[in-house]
Amino acid sequence: MTGDSPAVVLLSGGLDSAVVLAICRTEGFRPCALTIDYGQRNRLELEGATQISDALGAEQHIVLKIDLTQWGGSALTGGHEVPTGRAIEEMAHSIPITYVPARNTIFLSVAMAWAETLGTGHVYIGAHALDYSGYPDCRPEYFRAFEQMANLATRSGVEENTTWQIHTPLLRMTKQQIVRRGVALAVPFEHTHSCYQPTRDGLACGVCDACLLRLAAFAAVGIPDPIHYRQDGTTSS
Amino acid sequence: MTGDSPAVVLLSGGLDSAVVLAICRTEGFRPCALTIDYGQRNRLELEGATQISDALGAEQHIVLKIDLTQWGGSALTGGHEVPTGRAIEEMAHSIPITYVPARNTIFLSVAMAWAETLGTGHVYIGAHALDYSGYPDCRPEYFRAFEQMANLATRSGVEENTTWQIHTPLLRMTKQQIVRRGVALAVPFEHTHSCYQPTRDGLACGVCDACLLRLAAFAAVGIPDPIHYRQDGTTSS
Repeated sequence: MTGDSPAVVLLSGGLDSAVVLAICRTEGFRPCALTIDYGQRNRLELEGATQISDALGAEQHIVLKIDLTQWGGSALTGGHEVPTGRAIEEMAHSIPITYVPARNTIFLSVAMAWAETLGTGHVYIGAHALDYSGYPDCRPEYFRAFEQMANLATRSGVEENTTWQIHTPLLRMTKQQIVRRGVALAVPFEHTHSCYQPTRDGLACGVCDACLLRLAAFAAVGIPDPIHYRQDGTTSS
Repeated sequence: MTGDSPAVVLLSGGLDSAVVLAICRTEGFRPCALTIDYGQRNRLELEGATQISDALGAEQHIVLKIDLTQWGGSALTGGHEVPTGRAIEEMAHSIPITYVPARNTIFLSVAMAWAETLGTGHVYIGAHALDYSGYPDCRPEYFRAFEQMANLATRSGVEENTTWQIHTPLLRMTKQQIVRRGVALAVPFEHTHSCYQPTRDGLACGVCDACLLRLAAFAAVGIPDPIHYRQDGTTSS
């Protein structure tokens, strides 16, 4: 089913999900952007998400607050240090401490709720290859299991035989390919945020895993990264 | 795994989940109660949940706000009338308009997040037999699909071989059996709320599906329902 159907796109304000929103449009859906404010450190991502959503022509944009900091458990929701200066190969060998328990499942569940209200079974999420070596909830078998569960969970699945589809267009792409695709689709990278520990005024640290991956990808593509980085590259909050 | 293990119990403030919390303790777990405030009409349920949690000795109680009213879609989150005066047989033949899209999936996902942080794979939810004829996400096959998904979604499932278990002790019980079990376990029914449309001062309407089921169950067990009902039985908010 394509054409006029809406699709819910999980939009974090990061680089990956911005590219996903653009891809969703090219695949013939009317994107409805959903941003989850789960208490992550990077508050500026939320503002960026609105700018991206406007720039890429999402039909609606909802920001939903779910306070996952109540029980901690991740470097992204507090209580752990973000690692810096790691080699990219090193990042891929363990579940990152930035893993937020059940994050994608919570996000997809909420997206499923809105999608059902919109009368669609299509949800887009920006999980990708490097993530999937580290985060359990970025693996293809996880998304297939989520779809099966969704088919049984919903009125649309039971009464209307809606077949739920979790679209993961970035899953097998490298960061470099994602950036290249974003360039082709005129994604406004200047509004995207990746850093795990930006300064209060929104400068990226340049040394956390997310910054290192992003910088390497832009360098490989051969275009400048339009966001601003701290000059000295040291970490601070 | 029983004994000292914690278990997350989804506690709504209603009658069913209160009985589940009591059952969880008898099954040897340390219950950690999780109440989701999703913008439901019955605000008093949230206060009731705290009283139940205290009375039944939950180890912790967290109230998490997730505003599912942003997209409507259910009589419980606004926009539809609650049906009243229906025969119990009538309630069982269709998905109720009080169905909230993806509610149990969202609740279980959040419970899963907290459970993983607590180091357990055990979650309790008060879904039961009458629900399950109406709500797709109260059926046994749904819960099994959720468990499969959870095993793939989490660090504990992947790295520690945690087998997720969604406990549904009420699933095959009638409301009457649930009340009887609650009496045996000293559940403080006076703090439980069931009505879909209580008055501002907390009186139950006595005519919505939830009230009718509850009243019939107490009558069948032969004990008085300790909560207060409107005298005239008419609906108003």
